[in-house]
Amino acid sequence: MDIRRPYLLFLGDAGDQLAAKTAYGVAQWRRDGCVGQLRLEGCRATCGLPDLTLEEAAAKGAQTLIIGVANRGGRVSELWQDTMLRALDLGMDIASGLHNRIADLPAVAERAQALGRSLFDVRHPDRDFDVATGEPRSGRRLLTVGTDCSVGKMFTSLALEREMRARGLKADFRATGQTGILIAGGGVSVDAVVADFISGATEWLSPANDPDHWDLIEGQGSLFHASYAGVSLGLLHGAQAEALVMCHEPGRPHMRGLPKSPVPDIADCIALNERCARLTSPNARVVGLAFNTSALDPQTAERTLKEAEDRYGLPAADPVRTGVGAIVDRLA
Amino acid sequence: MDIRRPYLLFLGDAGDQLAAKTAYGVAQWRRDGCVGQLRLEGCRATCGLPDLTLEEAAAKGAQTLIIGVANRGGRVSELWQDTMLRALDLGMDIASGLHNRIADLPAVAERAQALGRSLFDVRHPDRDFDVATGEPRSGRRLLTVGTDCSVGKMFTSLALEREMRARGLKADFRATGQTGILIAGGGVSVDAVVADFISGATEWLSPANDPDHWDLIEGQGSLFHASYAGVSLGLLHGAQAEALVMCHEPGRPHMRGLPKSPVPDIADCIALNERCARLTSPNARVVGLAFNTSALDPQTAERTLKEAEDRYGLPAADPVRTGVGAIVDRLA
Repeated sequence: MDIRRPYLLFLGDAGDQLAAKTAYGVAQWRRDGCVGQLRLEGCRATCGLPDLTLEEAAAKGAQTLIIGVANRGGRVSELWQDTMLRALDLGMDIASGLHNRIADLPAVAERAQALGRSLFDVRHPDRDFDVATGEPRSGRRLLTVGTDCSVGKMFTSLALEREMRARGLKADFRATGQTGILIAGGGVSVDAVVADFISGATEWLSPANDPDHWDLIEGQGSLFHASYAGVSLGLLHGAQAEALVMCHEPGRPHMRGLPKSPVPDIADCIALNERCARLTSPNARVVGLAFNTSALDPQTAERTLKEAEDRYGLPAADPVRTGVGAIVDRLA
Repeated sequence: MDIRRPYLLFLGDAGDQLAAKTAYGVAQWRRDGCVGQLRLEGCRATCGLPDLTLEEAAAKGAQTLIIGVANRGGRVSELWQDTMLRALDLGMDIASGLHNRIADLPAVAERAQALGRSLFDVRHPDRDFDVATGEPRSGRRLLTVGTDCSVGKMFTSLALEREMRARGLKADFRATGQTGILIAGGGVSVDAVVADFISGATEWLSPANDPDHWDLIEGQGSLFHASYAGVSLGLLHGAQAEALVMCHEPGRPHMRGLPKSPVPDIADCIALNERCARLTSPNARVVGLAFNTSALDPQTAERTLKEAEDRYGLPAADPVRTGVGAIVDRLA
């Protein structure tokens, strides 16, 4: 996948801000890569970008319409389809984070084909992968891991990229989920590849590179999540990372989607991730903690981070509140 | 998948015995479910069953033609296709362990459709799965795990089924790979499901059952295999097994397909499997060792098993040489 910029972000008729969180993530991390947003009547979300019509966006050079909104029940309304067809007519490609493929909409697929436009269904890998070899490769790699799903692995990886680039380091975010792929303009949705190729897809995503170049690989799931741990382990082996950052949300009552499963102890989670990572990266270790403390008041957040630093002997950051400078310091 | 018996085993023009190992496995474990074998000119393999023509097999009641042979380069020859078409005409379904789908052969697909026959491409799941819940379910479950791929996990699981049934226990082999599925008449090729659903597919394969019923689940890969460990971990969590049997081939020089990767220490492999299994099955433990000692002379094999028993405090069996009675004793 090689999704062309700049983007026009389509928010559709999103019923609330959460429904547009994919578009919001793109705007947050790649504002310079977006000409604006397109909202239909009744839309209750915003990315904080200028509202543009399709024609205005085309005039500003938009190359790709980004479907960055969760639709209800997996169905694409007529209004959405009309928007897509018109975008194709105006010269844009379309990239979608929807679960259902836009390439399966006959009218959209036919129009794209006729006009020579590209359709990117980023939840679905568009190529085959080789089986992983596990062989050492050059370059430096960091993988975000977690105590659970949705604890800020993507956000942390992007924050690390921004911080490292600001320091003049060579660093690239490597996306493994839909929002990350739309942000990066490429990547692979590793939880959607055939099981035998999880590690192979990850090796493909983060190939050999310059000795001083960092790949910052977006983790998925958790070794302690009963639904998805296979994906997490395949990623861990394929990433061959020397550095892991453990992501966590303090106070979460149970594992996401599993009301009877407790969140693991952070020390256990560090130990198991390091142990498993060393199969392909013998010196792998956790170099920092990234907490999402958004549910805590500032004093509690500060105390929580301080306590974690003391307990684990690692820099503990909240990418939003404190930035990830302390973790990059540790890497350097 | 619900593949009807009895089978006619198709060996094609297999160049050697190894090319027909899938058919051989079916004959070895389900001889009573097979009417005979069908070989084309030049075939150099045998399952030790009567050679039959398609017409003779149909007269003996064959319900399914089993394509139990690896073809060269993934292409199906004209001769094979003629055999398949004639089998459909004679009333048989077809089940194939080939990597390429027989359902993608237009002539075969059309004929099957026209006649109302079923085509089973057992390497490819034919349904969608839910995400795993990890919730406790009734029934007893055993999973074979391993230090590596191809160390006898399927063979051990089937040997356990045979031994337990001979003792009057309720036990069912649950297949997770192509040969196992053809032997069992159903199952799911877990390494071919979408990565997010490895554990979910395993939960589906081994559902809640009577409190005294054993599911004997065929393991895949190894937590220590850099290519496939994600599949192994997803299986381990989805199986929710109380009992694990560690399979191993003494003397193997390196991990299968990875010449630079050493085979893990058995104690490490036991510890990591138990630790990970306990996420969904808190009392999970390794109850026995199953070694493939076929490369060793009888005295060395006997000594190797004895030493392993002493070192690990577990019954150590070679399913072929000693049978798995000692492991079943330990379970009882």
